[in-house]
Amino acid sequence: MSDQAQIQKLIDDWRDALCARDLDRLMQNYAPDVLFFDAVPPYQHQGAAAYRASWEAMLPYLPPQLGSELREVDITISGDLALMHCLQRLINAETKEAATCGWVRVTVGYHRQQGNWRVIHEHVSVPFDPVTTQAAFIHELTAAE
Amino acid sequence: MSDQAQIQKLIDDWRDALCARDLDRLMQNYAPDVLFFDAVPPYQHQGAAAYRASWEAMLPYLPPQLGSELREVDITISGDLALMHCLQRLINAETKEAATCGWVRVTVGYHRQQGNWRVIHEHVSVPFDPVTTQAAFIHELTAAE
Repeated sequence: MSDQAQIQKLIDDWRDALCARDLDRLMQNYAPDVLFFDAVPPYQHQGAAAYRASWEAMLPYLPPQLGSELREVDITISGDLALMHCLQRLINAETKEAATCGWVRVTVGYHRQQGNWRVIHEHVSVPFDPVTTQAAFIHELTAAE
Repeated sequence: MSDQAQIQKLIDDWRDALCARDLDRLMQNYAPDVLFFDAVPPYQHQGAAAYRASWEAMLPYLPPQLGSELREVDITISGDLALMHCLQRLINAETKEAATCGWVRVTVGYHRQQGNWRVIHEHVSVPFDPVTTQAAFIHELTAAE
């Protein structure tokens, strides 16, 4: 399988594991020292256990039938390093309505370690309006965004 | 110069160019198709011209004597790809007070193109409080953050 296909599989596996609420499976592709900037506080989560805990705290707020949509996925790979960025949202898979905060910006760094690609860094965010300092959510993407 | 030293130089050059308000110099290390997720809207800036325009819009709001502080800089390099993440803030270089919104989380992807490292992706953000949906600024970092 090509490096590109392997990274795509990690992206697909992440979605499938999250939508199945299977955090053991979700964590299989994370490096022990992953550094995570989440859309909500704290400023950073250091390590796989902290990454997992952030999802454990989030799961009760997510719809029972969970789906994930990705747009504009861009993957760059060289040597043992890969960089992906995209727009992503969680949805209620039954109603197709947005769950949580709508679209977020996602950046993920992957590093091949002992032959296996692992997530070493993840950055998820929503911009804020500088006048109101409110998070500037987007629930529907248009061509301009 | 090692790859690590070259990436460190790009980080230093970015700071020096911004603090000198020299956008021509700032843009020298950006790929034409850089994709930028900024801390404020829009959701994404596509291309070097849009990245530059975002700084042109920002400069009038920054103190005359501008400084930049970085913490917890982490660089991973393999082949022609490099990934950096850190915490960063702009300051008034005279008073040492925080400018703008305090500390932000920064992720930068670099790609070597025709022998030169170029920024292909940059993601800057502040988390938001999920209860109030207000941006959760941090003006002083503590050991816990």
